Amino acid sequence: MNLTDLIFKTRSYRRFDESCHIDTKTLETLIDLARLSASGANRQPLKYLIYNTPEDCERIFPSIAWAGYLTEWPGPDKGERPSGYILILGDKSITEIFGVDHGIAAQSIMLGATEVGLGGCMIASIIREELRNELKIPDSFDILLILALGRPVEKVIIDDIKNDDVKYWRDSGKNHHVPKRSLKELIIKL
Amino acid sequence: MNLTDLIFKTRSYRRFDESCHIDTKTLETLIDLARLSASGANRQPLKYLIYNTPEDCERIFPSIAWAGYLTEWPGPDKGERPSGYILILGDKSITEIFGVDHGIAAQSIMLGATEVGLGGCMIASIIREELRNELKIPDSFDILLILALGRPVEKVIIDDIKNDDVKYWRDSGKNHHVPKRSLKELIIKL
Repeated sequence: MNLTDLIFKTRSYRRFDESCHIDTKTLETLIDLARLSASGANRQPLKYLIYNTPEDCERIFPSIAWAGYLTEWPGPDKGERPSGYILILGDKSITEIFGVDHGIAAQSIMLGATEVGLGGCMIASIIREELRNELKIPDSFDILLILALGRPVEKVIIDDIKNDDVKYWRDSGKNHHVPKRSLKELIIKL
Repeated sequence: MNLTDLIFKTRSYRRFDESCHIDTKTLETLIDLARLSASGANRQPLKYLIYNTPEDCERIFPSIAWAGYLTEWPGPDKGERPSGYILILGDKSITEIFGVDHGIAAQSIMLGATEVGLGGCMIASIIREELRNELKIPDSFDILLILALGRPVEKVIIDDIKNDDVKYWRDSGKNHHVPKRSLKELIIKL
């Protein structure tokens, strides 16, 4: 798959076939893509936690705030929840400034996930102290991002933006619509 | 090219064949990859500026702090400088919080650059006020990242890290060596 197709297919998915197990080796291979991606001043301050058992996934799920614009949707039902998670941590013993390293890393991982038939969502809306306590994450790590992963069961449709409204929405067929700004709007001239 | 190869080839390059023109259409196509990438709360607050003439490139070059660890190297010589730039701005009329959107966008763009035979460097060490004045960038935009682009003429070699030393260095053949932490170091267990 060329990169254009890969990026086009790499949507933010929030409903999955929860019965689909993601093996540890797959998650490690995805993190290796992040390892080989750029890092500010080459500091490489990110660390990763992997979870892929039903029990562990259940521990993480409640600490995630799902889909802010879908106010009546508390998140995926049982059976449609992520079957794997990668947590991206910032190792404060290396630096306290993580810049956009976790954005770069997360994009590499999510593109890699698409390539192996998975999908997911980068999540920054995290109930951090709850998650820290649940997983016993030491204070020496910042919790930067959760990557929720699984085999997607929803269709995500990119629409042209209308009236500057960026809110994604679901249609009656549960398809997820995401309004995107046009290229013309994004490239400015001075 | 599969994603693993693409990521492996997407190194941070700082010396280029400056005579290689990058056309506007190519830069626009790269930004379209960023446009279709994830954005926090789907706000899409990033804007882009494109420069690809020798005159414009000369205006941007002095505002970049090149390769912090190569203290005796002021940056690429004439003839080896970038022949194109994409500036990623944060549009403060949309939000003041850009999260890691520019990291995600930059990774999509740099991977796309590799796919079309280009390469470059994400640069956050920018003399921002100088650049703002030179390009007349309004205060309503934050200058988030510069992506310096061109046809690379240097070899970048990934080494295993030694003694926790993350500093990249050049060998006598001007090859650029980048120590990377091992996957074993990055994936932690609690």
